[in-house]
Amino acid sequence: MNGAESLVRTLVAGDVTVSFTNPGTSEMHFVAALDRVDGMRCVLCLHETVATGAADAYFRMKDSPASTLLHLGPGLANGLANLHNLKRARTGVVNIVGEHATYHIHHDAPLTSDIEGIAGTMSKWVRTSASSKVVAQDGADAIVAARQHPGQIATLILPADTAWNDGSGPVAVPSAIAPEKVSDAAIEAAAKAIEAGGRPLILLGTRAVRAQATEHAARIAAKTGAKVLAETSNGRIERGAGRYAIERLPYPVDAALAATAGITHVILVGAKAPVAFFAYPNKPSLLYPENAEVVELAAFSEDQEDALARLAERLGADKTMPVLSAASRPARPSGPLNTDAIAKVIGHLLPENCIVTDESVTTGRNFFKDTHGAPQHDWLSLTGGAIGDGLPLAVGAAVACPDRKVVALQADGSGMYSVQALWTMARERLDVVVCIWANSAYAILKGELANVGAKNPGRKAHDMLSLADPDIDWVQLAGGMGIEARKVETAEAFADVFAAAVSRKGPFLIQVTF
Amino acid sequence: MNGAESLVRTLVAGDVTVSFTNPGTSEMHFVAALDRVDGMRCVLCLHETVATGAADAYFRMKDSPASTLLHLGPGLANGLANLHNLKRARTGVVNIVGEHATYHIHHDAPLTSDIEGIAGTMSKWVRTSASSKVVAQDGADAIVAARQHPGQIATLILPADTAWNDGSGPVAVPSAIAPEKVSDAAIEAAAKAIEAGGRPLILLGTRAVRAQATEHAARIAAKTGAKVLAETSNGRIERGAGRYAIERLPYPVDAALAATAGITHVILVGAKAPVAFFAYPNKPSLLYPENAEVVELAAFSEDQEDALARLAERLGADKTMPVLSAASRPARPSGPLNTDAIAKVIGHLLPENCIVTDESVTTGRNFFKDTHGAPQHDWLSLTGGAIGDGLPLAVGAAVACPDRKVVALQADGSGMYSVQALWTMARERLDVVVCIWANSAYAILKGELANVGAKNPGRKAHDMLSLADPDIDWVQLAGGMGIEARKVETAEAFADVFAAAVSRKGPFLIQVTF
Repeated sequence: MNGAESLVRTLVAGDVTVSFTNPGTSEMHFVAALDRVDGMRCVLCLHETVATGAADAYFRMKDSPASTLLHLGPGLANGLANLHNLKRARTGVVNIVGEHATYHIHHDAPLTSDIEGIAGTMSKWVRTSASSKVVAQDGADAIVAARQHPGQIATLILPADTAWNDGSGPVAVPSAIAPEKVSDAAIEAAAKAIEAGGRPLILLGTRAVRAQATEHAARIAAKTGAKVLAETSNGRIERGAGRYAIERLPYPVDAALAATAGITHVILVGAKAPVAFFAYPNKPSLLYPENAEVVELAAFSEDQEDALARLAERLGADKTMPVLSAASRPARPSGPLNTDAIAKVIGHLLPENCIVTDESVTTGRNFFKDTHGAPQHDWLSLTGGAIGDGLPLAVGAAVACPDRKVVALQADGSGMYSVQALWTMARERLDVVVCIWANSAYAILKGELANVGAKNPGRKAHDMLSLADPDIDWVQLAGGMGIEARKVETAEAFADVFAAAVSRKGPFLIQVTF
Repeated sequence: MNGAESLVRTLVAGDVTVSFTNPGTSEMHFVAALDRVDGMRCVLCLHETVATGAADAYFRMKDSPASTLLHLGPGLANGLANLHNLKRARTGVVNIVGEHATYHIHHDAPLTSDIEGIAGTMSKWVRTSASSKVVAQDGADAIVAARQHPGQIATLILPADTAWNDGSGPVAVPSAIAPEKVSDAAIEAAAKAIEAGGRPLILLGTRAVRAQATEHAARIAAKTGAKVLAETSNGRIERGAGRYAIERLPYPVDAALAATAGITHVILVGAKAPVAFFAYPNKPSLLYPENAEVVELAAFSEDQEDALARLAERLGADKTMPVLSAASRPARPSGPLNTDAIAKVIGHLLPENCIVTDESVTTGRNFFKDTHGAPQHDWLSLTGGAIGDGLPLAVGAAVACPDRKVVALQADGSGMYSVQALWTMARERLDVVVCIWANSAYAILKGELANVGAKNPGRKAHDMLSLADPDIDWVQLAGGMGIEARKVETAEAFADVFAAAVSRKGPFLIQVTF
């Protein structure tokens, strides 16, 4: 058994059973080994940004890593922007990156590059396998690294001869271990902050935005009056009717400052003390009062749900009735499409138990309001601001959860960044409804141009923010990659087409022009 | 005048007059400054891989750098694979990469990343501007660095406050300087190697594949019998009727070894001693005989044309009549399409003075044979093996040379990597005819699977190399981005459509299905 097969068998033994791939010559032995090993699903992606983004969503849904298979330095580089998002989502992945044969690297062939250097910019764990005899053990170590709570990027670089020479056979992979629980002192410190008589904010992130955790937070809020918010961007929020209607810290600086005005204590639960996405002239970087005390209840790596449960108990809130969302949907809207009408269509029709991947950018700022009472669902956001994550996330969520409908809410500009994801949806018959918000602009930047104080933008600046001339025809793009699609221009049409699309299986795209 | 405007004025003063951009919030002041400064053309690209690839072709055509404008670490990361190709083409560019305001960086906002680390993997020159007062001087330094012969990647990182605070005004940029000439000793060493009585090979790269240089090489060949080859991949070969019919060292290892069998001296002229693109079990890494003597006539940075002229003179070949290509075109082919018929259509119809951007991969291995006698043209190749360069190269060549027709010869798999380039062709009304070789496969990998000795590939391996299921409809993809397109399935239809497309102005795409 060669190194490649030893590695693939090790990955499967370690429950890494999906590989989002775009292989090249140096990965051919790995590819060939896939047919000799049961249990590894390979998903071909036509650009590596799709592969890494899909692996991100897979982990967010399964809390267990997928692998990617990338071709040398450039293949890794192509996946790097979504690895940035993955890092900011605090999730894990095992990247397998091909490399020239060990004896060939020093010849500086055209595709030679500093793979460890590229990997190091985003990875927590990087190793170049030294030989075919150790590559399986390296794979096991990579899995252990990727599973480090809450999740880490592990990149294993695989010289071609470590794949094709004789391997060790598969090696055992240690079982996944539970996250550490927080200390009693941390519970006590958070409790004291809440009991201090000020205006505490409990900020939830990482796994603290899952349903059980937010319910504990809701009990604490009901009992103590503490304010509860989620971070602006989150890996996966479990929400909907019967769950706590968690709100997110707003993205715009002024709105965020309004949400934290008067806060005296910021209690972090798998979250980071909030800072502005960007700096703006004459606005602060920190999104909470300077004199507020920051208290960490649970680090990213710790058991946040347990921490909230124990904090609730300490505060006598464990029997308190939380305020949860009642089942409720907005009425079916009619008339012209705008961001409000779009939100109402989504709220009116979002299917039960679906997974929402949200890269709506400006169009989606108010989606939560109209979906708190929708049937229960998961909501996955762009976490690192590297646009082009939405469609890949939809691929990964659909692969992770084949029995759940995925609804991809997608801005047009960022959708174009990874439009190749549509092909993989067609190839794999993924159950995804893609809604493209076709406002033909990088709309967020129109506001940002004013926000940073850039005065009197002219024609050239306007052109750099516009996606018109030519308008993108998403129905043709989707058709070109084998996906049925429709364009809608009224709320009624959007509702009709969306209802039909979610009621059937398989990929479908709706171009929502407004 | 703020830092951004000071920088833009400096760039224009330094003859950097095109910016291939995808800006974000941190670059808004730079964007706003564009309207206050004459002479900078901004070309919006819907993915940064298009921006960097286009900048590569711009330099190859002009021998003078363009700039890119990229949004923070992820924007740079998205452009990194084509920067790898640019580095391997030995060309220059000034990357302007936005960064958070200096005082905001340490807050680790979601989009924060190690931009210098990412830039460092591909750039020769990297600097983060320290203030708005020095950003213009940094820009001038970046231009000087990018122009270092033969060309270098210079990356200037621009914190937002260095753009919006008061700047210095524009600073002077030193004039470009000519490359250094090689020493007489280098000429003598090369001459002695040719006169040694063995079988010398003169290997041309960088600027040594331009018409004047290859003509000098042809005189030397005619006089001495020395063999002349170009490197496998080249930035820009000037070729066609009346020029030397330079052949390239073949890509497949066995063919390359056959081409260099018996060679006793390898004389490098802006070229690298040839190595295999990949290692294969039981095949050598070096593509020339181990005991051959390697002599460098001219380094990448030196004046290769002058070196060849002086070598010709030293060898008494300066009055020798070179053997140049006679004007000749293959007959118009008919019948089913295959790689041979495709090559004959191209050879039959390639327009005078056009620029060919070639990412044909397997389909294009024999294109040279049928185009040596075509009207004079330039041929730009994928240099670094990072696929997805072809369509961006076509964008950059068309922007650099608006009066010349660009013919993009494009494999389908690599074309999908940067399909967003089609939109920029439409937006800018670029005069490009794109031919997509739609064989619905990563055809090169089918051969590579066998070449690396991976035996009995099964269904999963096959699926990873196939672009069928679904077949990509390039006519719809092009239409979705505002480009007229046709699909052809016979040699006659291809010839008819190609002839019509090259006879008019503006972008057009031909899906060549075979």
